[in-house]
Amino acid sequence: MADSSKVTLLDSWYSPFGMRVRIALAQKEIEYEYKEENLSDKSPLLLQMNPVKKQIPVLIHRGKPVCESLIIVQYIDEVWNQKSPLLPSDPYQRARARFWADFVDQKIYSLGKQVWLSTGEAQEAAKKELLDTFKLLEGELGQKPYFGGETLGFVDVALIPFYTWFSSFEHCGNFTMVEECPKLVAWAHKCMEKESVSKTLPDLKKVFDFLMDFIKKQKANK
Amino acid sequence: MADSSKVTLLDSWYSPFGMRVRIALAQKEIEYEYKEENLSDKSPLLLQMNPVKKQIPVLIHRGKPVCESLIIVQYIDEVWNQKSPLLPSDPYQRARARFWADFVDQKIYSLGKQVWLSTGEAQEAAKKELLDTFKLLEGELGQKPYFGGETLGFVDVALIPFYTWFSSFEHCGNFTMVEECPKLVAWAHKCMEKESVSKTLPDLKKVFDFLMDFIKKQKANK
Repeated sequence: MADSSKVTLLDSWYSPFGMRVRIALAQKEIEYEYKEENLSDKSPLLLQMNPVKKQIPVLIHRGKPVCESLIIVQYIDEVWNQKSPLLPSDPYQRARARFWADFVDQKIYSLGKQVWLSTGEAQEAAKKELLDTFKLLEGELGQKPYFGGETLGFVDVALIPFYTWFSSFEHCGNFTMVEECPKLVAWAHKCMEKESVSKTLPDLKKVFDFLMDFIKKQKANK
Repeated sequence: MADSSKVTLLDSWYSPFGMRVRIALAQKEIEYEYKEENLSDKSPLLLQMNPVKKQIPVLIHRGKPVCESLIIVQYIDEVWNQKSPLLPSDPYQRARARFWADFVDQKIYSLGKQVWLSTGEAQEAAKKELLDTFKLLEGELGQKPYFGGETLGFVDVALIPFYTWFSSFEHCGNFTMVEECPKLVAWAHKCMEKESVSKTLPDLKKVFDFLMDFIKKQKANK
């Protein structure tokens, strides 16, 4: 008989959205089965568990799927609520954390792709907006060690996976993150001191090489 | 001295996102001050309260702003948690409600605008995807009176404001909602039996005329 409390994660190693879930699971010390998905040949299980979006990550718990990375992280925080809370208990602070996590979602993926794939003025505009986004995030971070305050929180979990994209932004946009956004780089290094982050994030060079290959293929197909 | 518990809403009468917040406030029977914003000449208060997005709706409570409609609705549900719960108490059902509310957010506004403003094949494609979206929502509704089950819930609050756009979709896309999505139309009528909805939603003809004028101006500027 299947163990109904079993936790399974359908994911792809390079996905920043999947990394969010892996970090949350690590913070809570939850054991789970990891299933790597090949996104160009999706498994029947993925299509069955997320028929609407057909995307990773999907967390399967008690046989039921939870989809969309930030929704999964909130689910994990609500179900395993005894250890390492990710969202603050105060409703105003919760709303604020949700606002900034949502801001990360609306901006970084789409602007990042434009920095990778566009050229000329379009690329410059995307680069400027991406850096403005990072600077707004630095403003929200302020003097705190983490967005969550003294501990890793919801916004940290939402944002830190994109640290694996920093070098691709630098390479394609011809700038350095440490010069443009020194506080964000220092925050990323601070996050990497946490085992839940450092053991989850793949090797930065491996992600960089993967992204360069992706960009090359995308540009060839244009 | 200012009343620190005062609730103020910065909003625009025709905004489906603002309507979500007004319905949630009405469901909870919360008194508030309504401030109409002119989005072509935003007030200093709006720019001060939502400096990142500069968008309505903004809920100001205890002097502090909460932004983004679905985040505001969750905030209202968490602060005024004694009356008319909008999100279910079970974490899995909460995640499911968040998924569908998020799905509404990702699809209807952008596809609706394409149905209004595009022509030919692009319009047909947008119309098809919009109707597919509505049909997926009908599937999630199933045999329940509301998405929230026996009572109006988070997904109902997220979706029902777009009822004010149905006639514009029909007019621009040359179809009828009742033929294409009869269950969704029946659900909308059911929602309109609630005073919190019927007293919040503006006159449908007034919204239709507003949208036709908007579309005409947008097309003239192309």
